[in-house]
Amino acid sequence: MNSIDLNCDLGESFGAYRIGMDREVIPCITSANVACGFHAGDPVVMEHTVSLCQEYGVAVGAHPGFHDLEGFGRRKIAATPEEMRASIIYQVGALKAFCDAAGIRLHHVKPHGALYNMAGKDYRLARAVAEAVYAVDPELVLLALSGSQMIRAAEEIGLSAASEVFADRAYEADGSLVPRSQPDAMIEDEAEAVARVVRMVTEGKVTARDGSEIPIRADSVCVHGDGEKALAFVKKIGAALRASGIEVRTFV
Amino acid sequence: MNSIDLNCDLGESFGAYRIGMDREVIPCITSANVACGFHAGDPVVMEHTVSLCQEYGVAVGAHPGFHDLEGFGRRKIAATPEEMRASIIYQVGALKAFCDAAGIRLHHVKPHGALYNMAGKDYRLARAVAEAVYAVDPELVLLALSGSQMIRAAEEIGLSAASEVFADRAYEADGSLVPRSQPDAMIEDEAEAVARVVRMVTEGKVTARDGSEIPIRADSVCVHGDGEKALAFVKKIGAALRASGIEVRTFV
Amino acid sequence: MNSIDLNCDLGESFGAYRIGMDREVIPCITSANVACGFHAGDPVVMEHTVSLCQEYGVAVGAHPGFHDLEGFGRRKIAATPEEMRASIIYQVGALKAFCDAAGIRLHHVKPHGALYNMAGKDYRLARAVAEAVYAVDPELVLLALSGSQMIRAAEEIGLSAASEVFADRAYEADGSLVPRSQPDAMIEDEAEAVARVVRMVTEGKVTARDGSEIPIRADSVCVHGDGEKALAFVKKIGAALRASGIEVRTFV
Amino acid sequence: MNSIDLNCDLGESFGAYRIGMDREVIPCITSANVACGFHAGDPVVMEHTVSLCQEYGVAVGAHPGFHDLEGFGRRKIAATPEEMRASIIYQVGALKAFCDAAGIRLHHVKPHGALYNMAGKDYRLARAVAEAVYAVDPELVLLALSGSQMIRAAEEIGLSAASEVFADRAYEADGSLVPRSQPDAMIEDEAEAVARVVRMVTEGKVTARDGSEIPIRADSVCVHGDGEKALAFVKKIGAALRASGIEVRTFV
Repeated sequence: MNSIDLNCDLGESFGAYRIGMDREVIPCITSANVACGFHAGDPVVMEHTVSLCQEYGVAVGAHPGFHDLEGFGRRKIAATPEEMRASIIYQVGALKAFCDAAGIRLHHVKPHGALYNMAGKDYRLARAVAEAVYAVDPELVLLALSGSQMIRAAEEIGLSAASEVFADRAYEADGSLVPRSQPDAMIEDEAEAVARVVRMVTEGKVTARDGSEIPIRADSVCVHGDGEKALAFVKKIGAALRASGIEVRTFV
Repeated sequence: MNSIDLNCDLGESFGAYRIGMDREVIPCITSANVACGFHAGDPVVMEHTVSLCQEYGVAVGAHPGFHDLEGFGRRKIAATPEEMRASIIYQVGALKAFCDAAGIRLHHVKPHGALYNMAGKDYRLARAVAEAVYAVDPELVLLALSGSQMIRAAEEIGLSAASEVFADRAYEADGSLVPRSQPDAMIEDEAEAVARVVRMVTEGKVTARDGSEIPIRADSVCVHGDGEKALAFVKKIGAALRASGIEVRTFV
Repeated sequence: MNSIDLNCDLGESFGAYRIGMDREVIPCITSANVACGFHAGDPVVMEHTVSLCQEYGVAVGAHPGFHDLEGFGRRKIAATPEEMRASIIYQVGALKAFCDAAGIRLHHVKPHGALYNMAGKDYRLARAVAEAVYAVDPELVLLALSGSQMIRAAEEIGLSAASEVFADRAYEADGSLVPRSQPDAMIEDEAEAVARVVRMVTEGKVTARDGSEIPIRADSVCVHGDGEKALAFVKKIGAALRASGIEVRTFV
Repeated sequence: MNSIDLNCDLGESFGAYRIGMDREVIPCITSANVACGFHAGDPVVMEHTVSLCQEYGVAVGAHPGFHDLEGFGRRKIAATPEEMRASIIYQVGALKAFCDAAGIRLHHVKPHGALYNMAGKDYRLARAVAEAVYAVDPELVLLALSGSQMIRAAEEIGLSAASEVFADRAYEADGSLVPRSQPDAMIEDEAEAVARVVRMVTEGKVTARDGSEIPIRADSVCVHGDGEKALAFVKKIGAALRASGIEVRTFV
């Protein structure tokens, strides 16, 4: 039977600052990527977010990013692979401790923002990310862009990987995402977005921007929980996937 | 046979900033308290410090502190017990991940600076510290001031505790340290300092400032590695303890 | 003719994090206290907030606080008067530069949160605050709790001071605020809150918790802009003050 | 009469961390670039450094950098020109306040590290830097790499600029610095380094790596104060320049 995971970035509040509708979105997803205090999140928020995930049986993942709260981890920083290796061990370990304290298992790691994009294309950085995750716990799964250098690096070192796809983004013929700066980067029609994901899961294919049919592996779909509209879409896509006979559950 | 541990705060460098003579002092001690990035240290420094400890067979402890790099963790911050619980889980988890990556065991936790002093006297804060350590791993040992509220809190929740004593500090009749602001707070004479520690270990007693003999438990002596003079004293006290028939090894 | 200023803490957003309804509240007030990047705010937010104040002719004040974004400046930190002197010069200077760039004058300084409370009671800290403000620009006005040590310190060194009162807080017979932890600390009834301010301005008196009539100086009322209800109250109190024949304008 | 300035990066200590021999090097230079708390320095260090410069009559400049203490401002960060504009106004304003408090004039601004390099080549970023400096105070001078985009941007907006040269670095035929990653990037021989600077000042020429003679403007030479050897070279180059009939004084 076909299955897919719905993952969402969560735990992004910090001190007095609130971001996200975590309590509302958690019941609708199967995997959470929890910010680790470097680009978002703080220890109190992390403890609370892990607790919410535990309450709803949602798989907890670490969501490490650049140490740049001011830029929310979205700005490229020219850190070395050695610096990122240590930074990821640190962040994953911090989140893992909250899982240990709660008596649940840390399930996966998904890099955030600019780090996700950079390590998706730069093999040396991807390799540092994969090795850092493996070093903390070889049973962890690396969640990364389908077809990216991170998937390749994980496979090369014997780390489990899960391939992430996007419902609302267009793909190039080589499997990369159309940059947001381009006019047709986004799939605006919700029905079309859902249909594309169903096809990725059931057929392993997606129609690229140039009309060609390309193969794509889909273990997890990235959804958002930062507003009423995003939340409504999470519910819609979950229902549509189930209606298409696809099981919605976390990747192993 | 009597035994004692020599512990030292290490891994306090940060980015381009260097503090401490870690490489020189590590071969002379039996336990290291490694800064966790909040009051000192950064991920690259932590990874390197754990590696140095592993090389010399020194027990690795986490050294969590207030999130105050500017104040080096020495300024009191009115954080709540709930905030400190989460902060300590975070910091201990981060350091534990470097131990996991290195294939060694995280051995103990010793709070730093103002947190050490505040949690030594405030039972609610002490309890939060002990519970945080226990939550990450119930096998960890809490290293804290002999006779302090942290020792009491650890014992109450079933967490192992190790009692720290100071060679160069005078004690009050109630077992507390004479504040540094007072004229006779420091034991300036090195031979006297060593002799006091030998007596704490072998007899479980120390002479307080008022001349009274008080009981004291000594599992570990705090030494410093921040200069040539401090380093020379570490070597001297280690040799003197061994010469007195005391085994120098880490606490269990 | 009697007059009073309405001041509000603003510019508290940080990076991707939003706090406050700055655009809505600025047209309703006469003085803004703009966060300076230590407990809230960042350079981009500061530049934008100064620009909004300029657009509506609202007097711009610096709102320095403890360097504690995680605690939003609300946690006491045991910084020395020397550290706070330098910290305030830094923060006030940073905000003043945005005023210089916009071609407007920095008007006043109001310490934030735990610093406001601590310097209100501790004369040494109050003196350091007043001297720091004077050092940056002796024409600045220090806005602080009516009757506090900061008002006293400012007067002693020849710095102008403006006395802040609270519409929604009860006062003790000695002129201090009833702590929030006590049951009758807040004036819940809005009409009563407004009437108390009118009387503070026109008669220089307020009824303390014990029923006694005490003298109080009121140059400015603190209002809030962090929600629809707060915003509605700002409009209500402004209208009520004007209806009572009180001019609403910034202090000189 | 020919003249040249000797500038040095200073005030890079932070909290308990010490970097640099500020007290020793300040008497030997004519301009100081003082770190502003983002990549190095803190308010207490800034106040102290300004005071030292005042004592020796050394011109004080602001040395803004990326907000990256962990990377000491040496890592490229993909900040937008708008973000850097605000960041520089903030940092320059903070340092200017310490000058105002000391009763001296802030003299110039020199960007630090990765920002210096990026803004030297990227006109949009260079323009943002120049406009930020001008916005704080149009009388300030922008100190930047001779021939760089920052010099061009300053001239275009009517901001005074001073051209910095390096004694110990080789130049390409186009006037850019040979990257440090290349084997002949450094001028190792001290006598040759001094002779090159003398020629830059007196003839406005330097021999590039390919042997060609290129024109170069030299208003200031960058020197270092981070060790005994560096300090000795500062004294040597100052003496050699004076012996060659060149006046060593700050640029106007």
